[in-house]
Amino acid sequence: MIVVMKQGSTPKQVEHVVQLVREMGLKENVIVGEERTVVAVIGNDRFKDRTRMESSDGVEKVVPILAPYKMASREVKKERTVVPMGSDPKAAIGGVRVGVIAGPCSVENKAQLLEIAHAVKEGGAVGLRGGAFKPRTSPYAFQGLAEKGLELLALAREETGLAVVTEVMAVDQVDLVAKYADVLQVGARNMQNFNLLNAVGDQSKPVLLKRGMSATLEEFLLAAEYIMSRGNGQVMLCERGIRTYEEYVRNTLALAAVPALHRATHLPVVIDPSQGTGKNYLVDSMCRAAVAAGADGLIVEVHNDPEHAMTDGAQSITPEQFAAAMKAVKRIAAAVDREA
Amino acid sequence: MIVVMKQGSTPKQVEHVVQLVREMGLKENVIVGEERTVVAVIGNDRFKDRTRMESSDGVEKVVPILAPYKMASREVKKERTVVPMGSDPKAAIGGVRVGVIAGPCSVENKAQLLEIAHAVKEGGAVGLRGGAFKPRTSPYAFQGLAEKGLELLALAREETGLAVVTEVMAVDQVDLVAKYADVLQVGARNMQNFNLLNAVGDQSKPVLLKRGMSATLEEFLLAAEYIMSRGNGQVMLCERGIRTYEEYVRNTLALAAVPALHRATHLPVVIDPSQGTGKNYLVDSMCRAAVAAGADGLIVEVHNDPEHAMTDGAQSITPEQFAAAMKAVKRIAAAVDREA
Amino acid sequence: MIVVMKQGSTPKQVEHVVQLVREMGLKENVIVGEERTVVAVIGNDRFKDRTRMESSDGVEKVVPILAPYKMASREVKKERTVVPMGSDPKAAIGGVRVGVIAGPCSVENKAQLLEIAHAVKEGGAVGLRGGAFKPRTSPYAFQGLAEKGLELLALAREETGLAVVTEVMAVDQVDLVAKYADVLQVGARNMQNFNLLNAVGDQSKPVLLKRGMSATLEEFLLAAEYIMSRGNGQVMLCERGIRTYEEYVRNTLALAAVPALHRATHLPVVIDPSQGTGKNYLVDSMCRAAVAAGADGLIVEVHNDPEHAMTDGAQSITPEQFAAAMKAVKRIAAAVDREA
Amino acid sequence: MIVVMKQGSTPKQVEHVVQLVREMGLKENVIVGEERTVVAVIGNDRFKDRTRMESSDGVEKVVPILAPYKMASREVKKERTVVPMGSDPKAAIGGVRVGVIAGPCSVENKAQLLEIAHAVKEGGAVGLRGGAFKPRTSPYAFQGLAEKGLELLALAREETGLAVVTEVMAVDQVDLVAKYADVLQVGARNMQNFNLLNAVGDQSKPVLLKRGMSATLEEFLLAAEYIMSRGNGQVMLCERGIRTYEEYVRNTLALAAVPALHRATHLPVVIDPSQGTGKNYLVDSMCRAAVAAGADGLIVEVHNDPEHAMTDGAQSITPEQFAAAMKAVKRIAAAVDREA
Repeated sequence: MIVVMKQGSTPKQVEHVVQLVREMGLKENVIVGEERTVVAVIGNDRFKDRTRMESSDGVEKVVPILAPYKMASREVKKERTVVPMGSDPKAAIGGVRVGVIAGPCSVENKAQLLEIAHAVKEGGAVGLRGGAFKPRTSPYAFQGLAEKGLELLALAREETGLAVVTEVMAVDQVDLVAKYADVLQVGARNMQNFNLLNAVGDQSKPVLLKRGMSATLEEFLLAAEYIMSRGNGQVMLCERGIRTYEEYVRNTLALAAVPALHRATHLPVVIDPSQGTGKNYLVDSMCRAAVAAGADGLIVEVHNDPEHAMTDGAQSITPEQFAAAMKAVKRIAAAVDREA
Repeated sequence: MIVVMKQGSTPKQVEHVVQLVREMGLKENVIVGEERTVVAVIGNDRFKDRTRMESSDGVEKVVPILAPYKMASREVKKERTVVPMGSDPKAAIGGVRVGVIAGPCSVENKAQLLEIAHAVKEGGAVGLRGGAFKPRTSPYAFQGLAEKGLELLALAREETGLAVVTEVMAVDQVDLVAKYADVLQVGARNMQNFNLLNAVGDQSKPVLLKRGMSATLEEFLLAAEYIMSRGNGQVMLCERGIRTYEEYVRNTLALAAVPALHRATHLPVVIDPSQGTGKNYLVDSMCRAAVAAGADGLIVEVHNDPEHAMTDGAQSITPEQFAAAMKAVKRIAAAVDREA
Repeated sequence: MIVVMKQGSTPKQVEHVVQLVREMGLKENVIVGEERTVVAVIGNDRFKDRTRMESSDGVEKVVPILAPYKMASREVKKERTVVPMGSDPKAAIGGVRVGVIAGPCSVENKAQLLEIAHAVKEGGAVGLRGGAFKPRTSPYAFQGLAEKGLELLALAREETGLAVVTEVMAVDQVDLVAKYADVLQVGARNMQNFNLLNAVGDQSKPVLLKRGMSATLEEFLLAAEYIMSRGNGQVMLCERGIRTYEEYVRNTLALAAVPALHRATHLPVVIDPSQGTGKNYLVDSMCRAAVAAGADGLIVEVHNDPEHAMTDGAQSITPEQFAAAMKAVKRIAAAVDREA
Repeated sequence: MIVVMKQGSTPKQVEHVVQLVREMGLKENVIVGEERTVVAVIGNDRFKDRTRMESSDGVEKVVPILAPYKMASREVKKERTVVPMGSDPKAAIGGVRVGVIAGPCSVENKAQLLEIAHAVKEGGAVGLRGGAFKPRTSPYAFQGLAEKGLELLALAREETGLAVVTEVMAVDQVDLVAKYADVLQVGARNMQNFNLLNAVGDQSKPVLLKRGMSATLEEFLLAAEYIMSRGNGQVMLCERGIRTYEEYVRNTLALAAVPALHRATHLPVVIDPSQGTGKNYLVDSMCRAAVAAGADGLIVEVHNDPEHAMTDGAQSITPEQFAAAMKAVKRIAAAVDREA
């Protein structure tokens, strides 16, 4: 870190900062500039609280230099991580093949789920999404079928061979969800539910971690670090749109996060164009753009009857629209030397 | 809700929307304008998924009219809710008196906590804040003293009479925290941890609910509705700054939320100027502004040695600064016909 | 528009709103719901101030229904507009061919400009960008070569055949810039400089209009409407990133704006991945994603010596990087049935 | 500035950076850390383009240390600037007295303006606002009375003694507006219209500079620096709300900007609670909060008939509401040892 002193800071104030640095087990390098003094701190301060020195007299601000995460960083692991989903070797995220996960927002009933599962398999998906536990903004909204939903997902896997990706919302659901699912999803609203991150880190199924709706990439990678630091390195990062002032979308899909994450981390990156826009008529275009940008996977909401969907009808595409989107995605994948 | 049809929508498409409306148990009023048709929906659609009709052919968009919350709304309860904190009748939020909660970000040890508790009591606080379970962005950072911290808080209450306000991060901590605390705090990162909201709604201690860092007021009130719908009406809403593009602050403190919330809900509103700015030199000014804006309470981070604080030193003020801030707050409170 | 009355509004208040509606030359349809009354307004209120009724007693809010722009709307013109740039028929934006505009941020001198112009021509660009008048955040920064820069751009056009695209910052520069340029660029900071919009609307050269850094799409299209309403329909819309809380980029490139704009307007859409990210290492990926998303054109900053560039070196790519990006773009264009 | 090298950067890359630093006329201090090398740059780099080195091999990022403005900085002028408005010594912004500017959004006609002017004078205003040139989002909206409006403002000054504050939108309006007005307002949309900033800097009337709707404080102060660097030091900074994701307001009023600006600059700070919220029912509370936060002035939209106002009716308060707000403001001012 760099401690920037105020203009006119006194030697005594600088000396005090130096002492604080040494107390932290670090070394200092005091640079007296023409207008300001800065104290460059040498050593691994990655895991220290680096802002508290801002409360010291004479300090203007503290600028961190080292990224605060380690296991998620490309600096410690150059080769890209490939995360398998279930037993089908084709169902992996992070390799040459772009892995597509598709399915309804919520598991509603057997007929609905199986119809959609077969359709997305047909379209080219390798994973099946579908919520059994649903985080809903309103307490009066449909909250999911819970274990019944998980059973239906397992049934759909049996019938189609698709890997099951489903959300876990609470620590006490982890074992149950892990029993049925191939991949545990941690939703955007829980990206900083640290107890949950620890719990999914303590089990061995892969985790699809969604970016919080206004999380920075650093916070996103630190959430992944929580999981990894507990021993589970099978983490997929999912960009699902961020909250901005924009009104024509539910969220602003930040596709530059794809190359930026690839630069910072070895973990694979999945894009959610459904949540990422909130509008079914924007999903197709954003699937293509995501793959062109370098995304390792897609997760797409598909419903056979969106206007009666129990959740998120406005952003679900139909199986026909999904099939068309997949055709386009395959062409884009080929154009960037990948498959889909 | 109002369903706005696209320009050039067909009568058949309108008819289909009408059928969907009736299926939902609602009535319609079709208004054929010069350029567009709109279908005004009559009846209580407050708890329906109102956007799914956006996936129907010929529909441009759906505009909700009714707020989706009910128990939190001023429409069902005109008189303002006053939330007591502990046994001291002066320690209530929502009455004429502006209630001030102060203390360290984290409970670190007995000496630290007691010294600060006495100091903030002296300064005029009625509640003591202090984290025993700490939601930390990094897995490598100090995570709190857990039950040991709760015991120290209880001790501090015994010595000072201050009501204890402390965060609960997970469902399985609720009983433990409720055993020691007078008020359970749900942090910004957990504002949409719905399992936790249900759990604090199922017990009887008052809840200080912090606004998520990019939550809308509607989402904020729906989070309160989760708690209230489980039977716990003792909810305080805490604005703690939102995430914006601004760089000179950690968060942008949205003080217009105070009168806007007072207009929408009967629940009291507390301001957190410490988290709300992230800079100790802005806290004093924002305490004054909050009270002038009509806030019912303040929650302020105070530390006796900010440059050695284990968490959030940069935004903590010292006991001396707190005392000065409180003097100013009392004058402002008097100027708006309140006390502090 | 829809005027939503407050719960408990009186018949007299509703009657007053009805009178205001009639005063505006519009008709009303009063819908008495179970909880609220709404007044649906019939007629073209597109060009009225629709919020002022929010100040009337008993009114909760006013919801606009009709988009406030007309000439830019797809509702009045279904076929897509193709904007020619200069005399080369290949240099058009909005047709099957994706038009690429490239060049330095600023025109610095003859050797620099000609070298870059030849290189981008070689790489496949059809337009040459380069600023002669530079909007700089700091008054102490390089402000551009002014007319001298325009002369160099004209010279580069002569040597390469590239169409010249350059920014005009002020009304009194319009004639001068129009004398040299093939396309007048209005920068993001001037998107709501209405006098300038009128001035470029009063002349006949095509206009590349950049989205303001926090403009909504509606505001963006209204800015285009300013230009079009003065008689100049040759407007290209350029998305260049919006300001959000994100830190790893200078701006967040909102690629969903491409299909969203295509849905709302017949005007072509150009993406600026340089300004849109601020980082040269993200440009390549965003060029590909933009074309996959359906963009009609790209505008890219290229410099032969970025570390000595007088402006925006951090986001400029080299001619070699541009050539590689173009190869990738051509493959993506083919995959979406376009050329580049 | 600090140049942070990538992990694994080579000595040759560091040497190259050192050469670039020296080329810029600056000195370097190379600090070899355990994980990374950083190059601390010594000397005044305030007016250099500090990011271009980010394009050099081996460079991770560049961190600026010195603020890029100088004349606006408190570092060069410790005492606070007081800006007089017109000839009445009470009508100054920046002294003990909080100066209140009030009036209609637009000048509409003589009767309207005079009625409002007398009313706000009565209420305690020292300045009269009113737009003669109106920046309107839509080309079809009322664009202001132009010179006729200026004449009416001058008449109102004559009748009431209020200082006239009115917006100038274009370079070629500066002389005209300066002929009639006591203070020239530069609107939020023109905060980075650099030609206009230069033009108001070249004349001698005070300038009320509004913060752009998503400008950082640094950009805001650089805009002031444009004006000051041309010789006009009479600049008032006006915070008028920023664009965020919030929906219950038109803009989010960032009141922490008041103490933050007072820390960074000697220029006075004015708050616009009308534009800053967009809702008349929030204005009163935000007037109080602004003064409590330390604002040096307020600028408030007042209309005698908001529901027929030609512009901004939804955020205008009536003369009666203004009188009540002023009473409250005076009490708050007294509580912070100021007057109003």
